[in-house]
Amino acid sequence: MKKIVTLGEIMLRLAPLGYSRFTQADTFGATYGGGEANVAVSLANFGMDAAFVTKLPTNDIGQAAVNSLRKFGVDTRHIVRGGARVGIYFLEKGANQRPSKVVYDRAGSSISTAKPADFDWDHIFEGVDWFHFTGITPAISPDAAEVCLAALQAARAKGIATSCDLNYRKNLWSKAQAGETMAKLMPYVDLCIANEEDAADVFNIHAAETDVTAGELNLDGYVDVARQLKERFGFKYITITLRESFSASHNDWGGMLYDGTQAYFSKRYAIKNIVDRVGGGDSFGAGLIYGLLSDLGPQGALEFAAAASCLKHSVEGDFNMVSVAEVQALAGGDASGRVQR
Amino acid sequence: MKKIVTLGEIMLRLAPLGYSRFTQADTFGATYGGGEANVAVSLANFGMDAAFVTKLPTNDIGQAAVNSLRKFGVDTRHIVRGGARVGIYFLEKGANQRPSKVVYDRAGSSISTAKPADFDWDHIFEGVDWFHFTGITPAISPDAAEVCLAALQAARAKGIATSCDLNYRKNLWSKAQAGETMAKLMPYVDLCIANEEDAADVFNIHAAETDVTAGELNLDGYVDVARQLKERFGFKYITITLRESFSASHNDWGGMLYDGTQAYFSKRYAIKNIVDRVGGGDSFGAGLIYGLLSDLGPQGALEFAAAASCLKHSVEGDFNMVSVAEVQALAGGDASGRVQR
Amino acid sequence: MKKIVTLGEIMLRLAPLGYSRFTQADTFGATYGGGEANVAVSLANFGMDAAFVTKLPTNDIGQAAVNSLRKFGVDTRHIVRGGARVGIYFLEKGANQRPSKVVYDRAGSSISTAKPADFDWDHIFEGVDWFHFTGITPAISPDAAEVCLAALQAARAKGIATSCDLNYRKNLWSKAQAGETMAKLMPYVDLCIANEEDAADVFNIHAAETDVTAGELNLDGYVDVARQLKERFGFKYITITLRESFSASHNDWGGMLYDGTQAYFSKRYAIKNIVDRVGGGDSFGAGLIYGLLSDLGPQGALEFAAAASCLKHSVEGDFNMVSVAEVQALAGGDASGRVQR
Amino acid sequence: MKKIVTLGEIMLRLAPLGYSRFTQADTFGATYGGGEANVAVSLANFGMDAAFVTKLPTNDIGQAAVNSLRKFGVDTRHIVRGGARVGIYFLEKGANQRPSKVVYDRAGSSISTAKPADFDWDHIFEGVDWFHFTGITPAISPDAAEVCLAALQAARAKGIATSCDLNYRKNLWSKAQAGETMAKLMPYVDLCIANEEDAADVFNIHAAETDVTAGELNLDGYVDVARQLKERFGFKYITITLRESFSASHNDWGGMLYDGTQAYFSKRYAIKNIVDRVGGGDSFGAGLIYGLLSDLGPQGALEFAAAASCLKHSVEGDFNMVSVAEVQALAGGDASGRVQR
Amino acid sequence: MKKIVTLGEIMLRLAPLGYSRFTQADTFGATYGGGEANVAVSLANFGMDAAFVTKLPTNDIGQAAVNSLRKFGVDTRHIVRGGARVGIYFLEKGANQRPSKVVYDRAGSSISTAKPADFDWDHIFEGVDWFHFTGITPAISPDAAEVCLAALQAARAKGIATSCDLNYRKNLWSKAQAGETMAKLMPYVDLCIANEEDAADVFNIHAAETDVTAGELNLDGYVDVARQLKERFGFKYITITLRESFSASHNDWGGMLYDGTQAYFSKRYAIKNIVDRVGGGDSFGAGLIYGLLSDLGPQGALEFAAAASCLKHSVEGDFNMVSVAEVQALAGGDASGRVQR
Amino acid sequence: MKKIVTLGEIMLRLAPLGYSRFTQADTFGATYGGGEANVAVSLANFGMDAAFVTKLPTNDIGQAAVNSLRKFGVDTRHIVRGGARVGIYFLEKGANQRPSKVVYDRAGSSISTAKPADFDWDHIFEGVDWFHFTGITPAISPDAAEVCLAALQAARAKGIATSCDLNYRKNLWSKAQAGETMAKLMPYVDLCIANEEDAADVFNIHAAETDVTAGELNLDGYVDVARQLKERFGFKYITITLRESFSASHNDWGGMLYDGTQAYFSKRYAIKNIVDRVGGGDSFGAGLIYGLLSDLGPQGALEFAAAASCLKHSVEGDFNMVSVAEVQALAGGDASGRVQR
Repeated sequence: MKKIVTLGEIMLRLAPLGYSRFTQADTFGATYGGGEANVAVSLANFGMDAAFVTKLPTNDIGQAAVNSLRKFGVDTRHIVRGGARVGIYFLEKGANQRPSKVVYDRAGSSISTAKPADFDWDHIFEGVDWFHFTGITPAISPDAAEVCLAALQAARAKGIATSCDLNYRKNLWSKAQAGETMAKLMPYVDLCIANEEDAADVFNIHAAETDVTAGELNLDGYVDVARQLKERFGFKYITITLRESFSASHNDWGGMLYDGTQAYFSKRYAIKNIVDRVGGGDSFGAGLIYGLLSDLGPQGALEFAAAASCLKHSVEGDFNMVSVAEVQALAGGDASGRVQR
Repeated sequence: MKKIVTLGEIMLRLAPLGYSRFTQADTFGATYGGGEANVAVSLANFGMDAAFVTKLPTNDIGQAAVNSLRKFGVDTRHIVRGGARVGIYFLEKGANQRPSKVVYDRAGSSISTAKPADFDWDHIFEGVDWFHFTGITPAISPDAAEVCLAALQAARAKGIATSCDLNYRKNLWSKAQAGETMAKLMPYVDLCIANEEDAADVFNIHAAETDVTAGELNLDGYVDVARQLKERFGFKYITITLRESFSASHNDWGGMLYDGTQAYFSKRYAIKNIVDRVGGGDSFGAGLIYGLLSDLGPQGALEFAAAASCLKHSVEGDFNMVSVAEVQALAGGDASGRVQR
Repeated sequence: MKKIVTLGEIMLRLAPLGYSRFTQADTFGATYGGGEANVAVSLANFGMDAAFVTKLPTNDIGQAAVNSLRKFGVDTRHIVRGGARVGIYFLEKGANQRPSKVVYDRAGSSISTAKPADFDWDHIFEGVDWFHFTGITPAISPDAAEVCLAALQAARAKGIATSCDLNYRKNLWSKAQAGETMAKLMPYVDLCIANEEDAADVFNIHAAETDVTAGELNLDGYVDVARQLKERFGFKYITITLRESFSASHNDWGGMLYDGTQAYFSKRYAIKNIVDRVGGGDSFGAGLIYGLLSDLGPQGALEFAAAASCLKHSVEGDFNMVSVAEVQALAGGDASGRVQR
Repeated sequence: MKKIVTLGEIMLRLAPLGYSRFTQADTFGATYGGGEANVAVSLANFGMDAAFVTKLPTNDIGQAAVNSLRKFGVDTRHIVRGGARVGIYFLEKGANQRPSKVVYDRAGSSISTAKPADFDWDHIFEGVDWFHFTGITPAISPDAAEVCLAALQAARAKGIATSCDLNYRKNLWSKAQAGETMAKLMPYVDLCIANEEDAADVFNIHAAETDVTAGELNLDGYVDVARQLKERFGFKYITITLRESFSASHNDWGGMLYDGTQAYFSKRYAIKNIVDRVGGGDSFGAGLIYGLLSDLGPQGALEFAAAASCLKHSVEGDFNMVSVAEVQALAGGDASGRVQR
Repeated sequence: MKKIVTLGEIMLRLAPLGYSRFTQADTFGATYGGGEANVAVSLANFGMDAAFVTKLPTNDIGQAAVNSLRKFGVDTRHIVRGGARVGIYFLEKGANQRPSKVVYDRAGSSISTAKPADFDWDHIFEGVDWFHFTGITPAISPDAAEVCLAALQAARAKGIATSCDLNYRKNLWSKAQAGETMAKLMPYVDLCIANEEDAADVFNIHAAETDVTAGELNLDGYVDVARQLKERFGFKYITITLRESFSASHNDWGGMLYDGTQAYFSKRYAIKNIVDRVGGGDSFGAGLIYGLLSDLGPQGALEFAAAASCLKHSVEGDFNMVSVAEVQALAGGDASGRVQR
Repeated sequence: MKKIVTLGEIMLRLAPLGYSRFTQADTFGATYGGGEANVAVSLANFGMDAAFVTKLPTNDIGQAAVNSLRKFGVDTRHIVRGGARVGIYFLEKGANQRPSKVVYDRAGSSISTAKPADFDWDHIFEGVDWFHFTGITPAISPDAAEVCLAALQAARAKGIATSCDLNYRKNLWSKAQAGETMAKLMPYVDLCIANEEDAADVFNIHAAETDVTAGELNLDGYVDVARQLKERFGFKYITITLRESFSASHNDWGGMLYDGTQAYFSKRYAIKNIVDRVGGGDSFGAGLIYGLLSDLGPQGALEFAAAASCLKHSVEGDFNMVSVAEVQALAGGDASGRVQR
């Protein structure tokens, strides 16, 4: 069984039920999520041996975060316990023209105060095939960036494949800070994952003439972005998720994979009654890692990723609760949604 | 007032709330339903005198099933009490490309262990105008198939009109078994109800060149299927529901009625925000029975059935909670959904 | 800060959760709302100083209604306490072809038994810039109509701008009664707000060749209606909301503003996954009042009103829980619904 | 099977969930109940043929009230449909020193506007063994009092046993009005049911030296009250429920039955974690009617009534959801509450 | 109307529903509370003009906190907006031998980063009669302690009565720190409020021979503590709440008031089915402030405080949702919990 | 870290929310539990390495059962997947005199059709210190009894300590069957766990003069029972839980441990507001296993067991969600339930 390690922050997600706005809610759904945790759960749901590494406080909220991962079979033995608090994000679900809204409350979380010495990568990486993190982790704190670097170097030394989802978060750092720090980490990365805006935000690499808000896609532009990323950092693969937002309830979705030679495009999916789009990008990354580790080939891995993440938009919570068989059915062409008995 | 009897199984339906998946749920909505019970409730909601016949255990879950029917005015006096358990089905609601999913747990239910001697059809059929069952009932057990046959023969003897919804369930029996058993029952049936696939599954009767998954309808093909059914079993009416599944959230819906001479087609309805499509076929059957018993004529009865079952897709649960006036308003052309004050 | 007073009834709104029908519900969401209260809350959410005037009983249900307004900063000091009961409306949410349904239970409410002497308009109108009511208030009782007249006369005396949403309710009075009473009040009104049908229902003023049920809009016709209203009552502004109902889940929405000289049309919005359309018209009126009080000009005020009320369709409850910034973002062209972090 | 008819009002009961107060609630549990409806459901749960007679509006709320009775097998065929509204009562559950609180909103309900001609007692009373009503029904309106009188006279003519729970409600009428009206009805009553205060409130008959608030019971005094009632109205049986209120969570409970010769006292039950005490008196009355109709003898019937109503305090809602076997187990001495597997 | 200002922190309170433990919960009830906010709401519920002063972020969670206060009529105009976050506390409700559990997550809250210059006490204290804070506020940060001092000095200058609830929180500061800081503030305080342990924790003042865990009360000891406090700081009044904890579900409760001359003791209340004891002390303080401001005399004010806070144990949430009439009924002797109709 | 294996059935537990009865519920809380699974979760919560062995179907309900165990860190790698269904039990929570009620629906579950060859005990028992099962497992089917025997023999061969909770279930087998089968297994058992009735039900061993229903305990009698068990089967330890049931809400609870020489009695706990008593016995067994494996000595282990299981009565669900520290605090004498901050 393939073994994957992801590193990052898992937060308590507090979301008003249904379509209530924050100021209307007197109950919050309480789940847990975060980019790299989401990838770990996706891979565990695909039957892989996925471990998640982070730091969490010793209190009951920290334990509940651990339990949320164990429930789906994620290996949590390498989670360090200590520090002050679990980071929180508040999520209000949008609909139609009203966008979803996120209020972050993550400052001072245990992982943000973690030190490189907290993690013994030689031990963590025993028997591991793949290491994944996102641009959020180094953004949390300078120490967290050091942790990422240490992990990447250990992975390189052990011949472990690596991936990074650029995932720029403007609340955590400036574009300049992101660009500088990420540039130091990218040389150790094999697979670079980005959405339509990340390359521009982090590395000032632009796809000409694309206006994301207007929902138009410039496919050639994205290939050009991938080529520039390849040139600058020497990635083995660059993949870009391609979302067209018609409204908070209706997105079209797909992806592109560039292997340095050729650009592959997935089928595109129209998702008109979105259930929960948070974690869509993470589920795409997880699908691609699964596909590449399972030797599905570039087009096969990309289609798996696109179908997996299409399904995520119909699943509540950060975690993508879908099986390989369900992804394959959709990737194989059955999008009819007929009842499975 | 017209009096209808239906015979079959009523199950406890356990469904995660909202769009939660089974492995996410710690609460299940608990309602009751099943093909023939659904028809009985629909007809009771239309103001008819509908009775449901089955066997249910004497425990509180059996009583809750009885109560769920009484609540809507269904006559439950002929329900036999005994046996081991209420059958269960677990239902996970789909959305977009993610299909709804059913897990059956019905083996060993009280009705599956019922004996022909449990039911006194002469008594049950006093003053009755119509008898309805579906292909699920004879599939439950050989004894249940005998019960169906006894009921049909008693109905024939008393001049009671009869209907059967073919409703093939691959978990209960093979196509060969279904074909053999159903062929013995069909000669006693006046109205045959089927979906796009039933005739092929049960009787190996095919409409050429129709690919249901792809969502294309071959209207001529369905008329041909109806003609073949008529020829083989001599039904008075054959009706076929015509569903195009674009996604779990969006179906187009309508029906065809063939009276041996002429094929009638209903209006088609686009249902883009499906609330609950389980029981859609049952609500169509109930609508048609209502229409025929109320002398609405073939086109009128068919339009009533199509409108009633269109509305079912916007109602939670197995039961179709709509009134004759509501169905007539839609069949009459008002699909605008404007607030009724 | 601009100061607005609205006068009317606030009711307890009892709505089955989700898409349950009345006969399926064993829980009701309990919120409060009513045309003029909704306008007051909208304006308070826009940061204005809004007061709501009504009569409510001294019991805990009356207090809960007061609290529901205070929560959002509405000034409730002028609410008179006394009388027998809080009016109630039951709301069942529709979907697709199944319309939403309202059952009113408002007879005998405290405001319906209020007397003109209950309200000291000189005191209430101190420092006030705008007075708003709807056609529901005078329909509640002859005394309530007298209260409206007294308020309008006091407003005129103090140079306060006034608006009336015609809001014809057939359950409260006949078209003839409405026409007679409203005609006495209109001379004191500066801004007349109507939906596609109100002018015809109340004043027998028709836009030729428009069939609302069919969902077709006759834009020229509405300008003609506005001109007739202007001629008859001398309003400064007439605004008409323009809804096309394709289903209970999908409406198109926009508005027209006529200033006696020119007709302005807003952008139109397609709302395909309606969350709650009750209060849509009220949120439009509030948006327009905000726009006019904020000197956005006719087109600017109209676009603000249209965007605000478009957003209302994605908010649960009667009250429009949106900020000026959110309205401006949509009016400014971003309808993509992308997550706001 | 014994057949019982009860006459009265069934209301929509709206109760904040758990221990929320009215001004904290944004959801109400919605059930239905009322003194005589509660008796009918209790008796149906005991396996008797119970019918409930009232008037309810034709709207969906009226239908939901009908369904709430049908669900438990109560015969609703004699319910007249028409009038304006379903009466409502709001219920806030107390705990410890904080009392439960009821806000009535029942004015103008359909039953309050019913006329004697609405009910054909000859037809309703076919094959009936017992007729029951409470002092609430004649208090609703003078016409309702006439309806009671007509029912009682018809019952007397047919030799049907009758019972009345005095149930004085100070919000509906004064003690003087109650005394005058009830005195006209009592001569037709066989079994008079009262709580500790009713005889004093309605007929100015006092048990010396009992202070209910202080929670002390004067057993001799209650026998004296029963004797006075017997002397004045000639009842066959007088029964008095004996509640000691230590707090909203802890009551002691039992009853006394006087047959004109002898006074019987039931076991007393300490109920220290009350779930819902509304309907406690009704469940006592139903238990006594069951016991007398089942020939359990005075002591047996009284013990059945006391045990049944003791259990009611542990059941949510107005209706007493307990079986004969459950009541017998408790009356027989097993109050240990051990899990029944 | 008397006008009171309280100063402190209001937190988001996140509590699993019912008796779920933190690691079992996937939903949190979301309310708001904090010592001084609780006092303000209590006083507003008693009909007084209460204002709450704090600092809250400009995001939606901060707004929800403001709304939670406005809902009950608390004046929120002096709340400063800014800073990073709303403090949070997680609350798990205990039962029987299992204690309630609080996890604080309040570091970095907006009020903890407030500066003295944020508050203009001259303006805030216009027309004010009473100022209240607790020992939590100065514990939040040295700046917050400065804010308290400034407020106290301004109050003294204006002749405003002041009160402080010692409320020692070991998670916020050491006993030594508390003692030093609080000693600087106490000279400006008129009414000192404490529980059984505060005087020892903060000022090392001990009541001999009292073991709180064991649930035994040493009444003389508390009078001695009050005398020592009086001697050391010259308070006008010292009041001590007296709780005996038999289990998480059962406490006895009362209070003592010392006016420098005489010690008054309230009735004691046995609360055996505790609903929510958080905020019990705050509701006592609010009751006493009400009583003193309303000239009820020492015994009268103390009985009002004890009854008000007894009732709090039967109310969900931090806020004491009870009226003056309800408190007076209990203080007047009716603890029977009989239904109020 | 000590390693424990338990063997048995885990069922889906479906329970109406709050105190609703089965026929009132339209929602079921859905958790998972069963005697041996409960022990495994308890031990995992105490920080031990606990594995649970069973057979579960490959469907999503089986997966959800696995996840419910993984969530709390139980090792589920040895769970065999296959068979037809997850067993179900319906649980209605009692209160006061109304008992809790269980409806079993476990026939045909996967574990009931498991074969001895499904489990490789040599592999499962690698490094294991303790093996535990209950009398429910051999009662499920003759094959399951064979599985138990094989496990016990393998444990004996490896020197693994063993325990059995007699747990007689009359729905699964007769006393005679139980006695015969259990007698074959007992020789391999070191620790025998029983409640007040098990020894009599299974082995016809009686404690003279104890009437459980009446809630009186005959302590000497239990020692006598333990001695007889010791004599007959040679157990190392016999422990008996001692419950006095005053009502469904109020039990007293404790235990006795006999080591062949001496009888130890634990403290007794009065639990007056029971939250959930299902799994009380299992939590006692788990506590005792923990105590013995941790070398707490007979009295220490017994007190740990009694305190752990006392706390279970205040925790929702089958699983005992308490930590070693929480148990030690109670065993150490703090039953005051004061808020832990």
